[in-house]
Amino acid sequence: MPFKRKDILGIRELEVHEIEHILEMAFSLKEINTRPIKKVPTLRGKTVIHLFYEPSTRTRTSFDIAAKRLSADTFSITASTSSMVKGETLLDTLKNLEAMKPDIFVIRHSASGAPHRLAHRTEASIINAGDGMHEHPSQALLDMMTIREQKGRLDGLNILIVGDIIHSRVARSDIWGLTKMGAEVTVCGPTTLLPPDISSMGAQVCLHPEEAIPDADVIIVLRLQKERQQQMLLPSLREYSIYYGINAAKLKRAKKDVIIMHPGPINRGVELSPDVADGPHSVIMNQVTNGVAVRMALLYLVSQK
Amino acid sequence: MPFKRKDILGIRELEVHEIEHILEMAFSLKEINTRPIKKVPTLRGKTVIHLFYEPSTRTRTSFDIAAKRLSADTFSITASTSSMVKGETLLDTLKNLEAMKPDIFVIRHSASGAPHRLAHRTEASIINAGDGMHEHPSQALLDMMTIREQKGRLDGLNILIVGDIIHSRVARSDIWGLTKMGAEVTVCGPTTLLPPDISSMGAQVCLHPEEAIPDADVIIVLRLQKERQQQMLLPSLREYSIYYGINAAKLKRAKKDVIIMHPGPINRGVELSPDVADGPHSVIMNQVTNGVAVRMALLYLVSQK
Amino acid sequence: MPFKRKDILGIRELEVHEIEHILEMAFSLKEINTRPIKKVPTLRGKTVIHLFYEPSTRTRTSFDIAAKRLSADTFSITASTSSMVKGETLLDTLKNLEAMKPDIFVIRHSASGAPHRLAHRTEASIINAGDGMHEHPSQALLDMMTIREQKGRLDGLNILIVGDIIHSRVARSDIWGLTKMGAEVTVCGPTTLLPPDISSMGAQVCLHPEEAIPDADVIIVLRLQKERQQQMLLPSLREYSIYYGINAAKLKRAKKDVIIMHPGPINRGVELSPDVADGPHSVIMNQVTNGVAVRMALLYLVSQK
Repeated sequence: MPFKRKDILGIRELEVHEIEHILEMAFSLKEINTRPIKKVPTLRGKTVIHLFYEPSTRTRTSFDIAAKRLSADTFSITASTSSMVKGETLLDTLKNLEAMKPDIFVIRHSASGAPHRLAHRTEASIINAGDGMHEHPSQALLDMMTIREQKGRLDGLNILIVGDIIHSRVARSDIWGLTKMGAEVTVCGPTTLLPPDISSMGAQVCLHPEEAIPDADVIIVLRLQKERQQQMLLPSLREYSIYYGINAAKLKRAKKDVIIMHPGPINRGVELSPDVADGPHSVIMNQVTNGVAVRMALLYLVSQK
Repeated sequence: MPFKRKDILGIRELEVHEIEHILEMAFSLKEINTRPIKKVPTLRGKTVIHLFYEPSTRTRTSFDIAAKRLSADTFSITASTSSMVKGETLLDTLKNLEAMKPDIFVIRHSASGAPHRLAHRTEASIINAGDGMHEHPSQALLDMMTIREQKGRLDGLNILIVGDIIHSRVARSDIWGLTKMGAEVTVCGPTTLLPPDISSMGAQVCLHPEEAIPDADVIIVLRLQKERQQQMLLPSLREYSIYYGINAAKLKRAKKDVIIMHPGPINRGVELSPDVADGPHSVIMNQVTNGVAVRMALLYLVSQK
Repeated sequence: MPFKRKDILGIRELEVHEIEHILEMAFSLKEINTRPIKKVPTLRGKTVIHLFYEPSTRTRTSFDIAAKRLSADTFSITASTSSMVKGETLLDTLKNLEAMKPDIFVIRHSASGAPHRLAHRTEASIINAGDGMHEHPSQALLDMMTIREQKGRLDGLNILIVGDIIHSRVARSDIWGLTKMGAEVTVCGPTTLLPPDISSMGAQVCLHPEEAIPDADVIIVLRLQKERQQQMLLPSLREYSIYYGINAAKLKRAKKDVIIMHPGPINRGVELSPDVADGPHSVIMNQVTNGVAVRMALLYLVSQK
C-alpha cells in the first residue's frame, strides 16, 4: 500500500501499515549515514523549513542532518532569533513562508495541536517535531525502530515507561505507537505525574518500578523536568531518584536482555544512573542514530505525496 | 542593453531600462520556484554572505531561499549573534569578510547610506536589504513586479501609499521606482508622518484616504510602527485605525479591481483589517512569492558584472 | 610521508613534516577561493559540525566557508542558541552528536584541553578552533602560511609578538609553531602579561618593543582584551598604547620590509594604530584569506585518516 500522507502530525492517527512503512523505509535509509559519502540526491531541489518556537538543538540538528543527507535545502527559523515571530500570528508566519514555496515545514511549538491546525491551511507538508504536551511522533518512531532493531519485533513485548508521564509528549506518542504495534505498555511514576486518562490510552499503571521491572523487555526512562519537583509532592530530586531513578540495584531483578532507552538529554544521577546510561543494556546512542534515519524516512515519504 | 551594475544600493539610482531588466529577469526566474526540483546551477560555487545588523527573518529568509535555489553557498551573520560586530567598525567587518572571497554581500543596517559607503570599498557586490529610513530596493522591485503581474503595466496607474511615510524605506523606494516607471503616486497619512520633501519626490499628498481611494488602482498599506504613536499626535492606535486603517467600509468606493498590498508583517486590525488582508483584493502573498523571484534576479544580475 | 592524524588539537604535538604538509596543502588549495566557481567536490557527503561554546563569528565563518567550498554539509551549534549545551556535559553533547555520524567536529571551548579530552572518545575527527588560553592551531598555521608567503621561509626569521602573551592562545600556538619551524621568537608586553614559563617555550623576552623592533622581520600584534587593564598595573589603555601600541613612530627604526600581523579583531588606536593596520607593511587581510585555505587543508587532511 503506498504511503499517501501529506503530513506527519502524530502517532495517534497513523495506521499500523503506515508505521510499518515508515520503519521499513528508515531501516533501508539508515545505511546512508555510514557511507563514505553520506548523501543521496533524493530530495535535491526541495526546500525544508525548520520552524522552531521552542529551543531544540538536538531534534533540529537531527532533522537538519536528515534533510541535507537527502540533498534538500534547509532553512532554520527559531523563535529566539525571529522578528517574524513577534507580533504576528503563527498562521500569518506560516502563510508568509508558504508563499516562498517550501515543500516541508518541520514545526516545534509549545501549543498542543498547533501543527494539526496549520496542516490543512498549507499545501506544504508539515512534520510535527513536538507540540506542547501532546505528541512527538519522530521520537516514538525512532523508539519503535530501536526496539525492533534490538528485539526483532514489537508485538508482545513488555515496555515499561518510567517518569513524568503526564507532561511528556514522548510518553504519549510512545504509548499510542507501541500499543498499536501490539506491545504491552506499563507506565510508572509518582501519581501526580500520571495522566488520569492513562487506561483509556491502553497502558497499565504501576506505582513502584520494582514491580514492573522483572517483566520488562524494554525500559524507557523519561527526562525529569526539574521544575516539576514541587508538583511531585516529593521533598527532593534525590527522593525521586531513590524511588523512580533507574540504577544498577533496581536492574538486578530485570531480564538479562532488558534494554534501557532515554529520549535525552539525561539528568545523570536523577532519573538514570551514569553506570546504567553508559552500560551494556543502554541503547540510548542507537536511538540517536536511528533518529536521523527515521527523520530521513519521514522527509522522504511526505515528499512523495 | 546588458546589466552592468556591481551593486544594488537603491531604486533612486537605477535607470528605467535597468528596472525593466530586473523585472523581466524576475518573471523568467519565477517559475523555478514551482518546479518539482526548485534549483538551478546558475550561482554554483558563488559565496553569498547575509550581513544583517537589524533583525529580519522575513527578508533574510527570502534572500537565502533565492540564493540557494540558484545553488549559491550562503552564510548568515547577524548582529545579535555576532561577536564580530562588537567593537569593530562596519568597514573592518566588511574588509575582513571580503578577505574570505565572497561574491555578494546582502546587507541590512540601521544607518541610512551604510551599503552605499561600503560598496566602493569592496570588489564584492553589495545588495541593500534595507538601510535605515532610506531605501529597501528589493521590496520596491517586488512591489513593481506584483503590480505589473496584476495590472499588466505600471505606466499611468494610480498608486496610493497609506501610513507612516516618513519613517518608511519601503515608501521611499516605492515612490522612486513607481514614479520612474510612469505611475502616479499619492501618499496619505497623518501630517506628522509625511516627509517635508514629498513633492520633490514626485508624489501627491492627500490627508484623508477616502479622497484618494476611488481613483486608486493599487493601495499599498504600510506597517505602523507602534512606537510612533506619540509622534502621530493621535490618542490611540484605534484612532489611527479609524482614520487611516484600510478596511471593507473604506473600500466600498474603491475600483472593483483595486489591489491591496502590504510589505508585512501586518498589524491586523491596525493599519489593515483582517477581512481585507485575506480578501479577494489582497495580493500580499503574491508579493512574498515575487520577493523570492526578484531576489534571485538581483543575485544573478550582480554576479554577471 | 602521508598525513595520518585523526585530529588537529594543537601545534605543540605536530611534527615539522606535518606542519610542512599542512602548509603545502593550504598553498595548493588556496587558488580555489579565487576561481569563478569556488567549489570542489572533495568533501561531498561529509558532515562537519561546528560546536562553538564561545562566540566567534570570525573563526566559525572561516571554517564554514572552507568546509562548504570543499562541498561538505555543515551544521552550527553555538552555546548561546543551544539547549543541548545546558544541563548536559560536554561529553554527553559530543556522544549524542557523534551518534548522528558526523565526520568532523570543529570545536571552540573556554576550557583549555577540552578538545584533547574529547578526541579519544569519538571516532570523528576533532579540529581545535581555540581552547581557553591554550591553543588556536589554525590561527598559528595561517600565520605561518602568511609569513612564508611574504618572506619565502620561516627558518631564521626574527618574529616579535607584542601584547597580552599570557592569556593568548594565539601567542602560545604561534610560539610552538614558529620555533619548531626554525624562527627566532621574541615576546614583548607588560611583565604581568608574560607567562612565567616563556623561556621553556623557546621564546626570548623583551620588555620594550623598541628594543626588538629593529631586528624583527615580522611583528605579530595581539588584541588587547580591555578587561585585562587592571591586571596590567597601567593607569589606562592610552598608557598601554603609548608603551606597547605599534604605530608609525615605533616602526621608524624597523626593517624596510617588516610585515605587521594581527589575529583580529583590531582595537584600532590601542594595540595598533590605524595607519599601520591599513598601511603597506600590514598583511592582516592576507592572514584572513590564508585562514580559509589553511582550514580547507585541515578539513581535507583529517578526512583522509
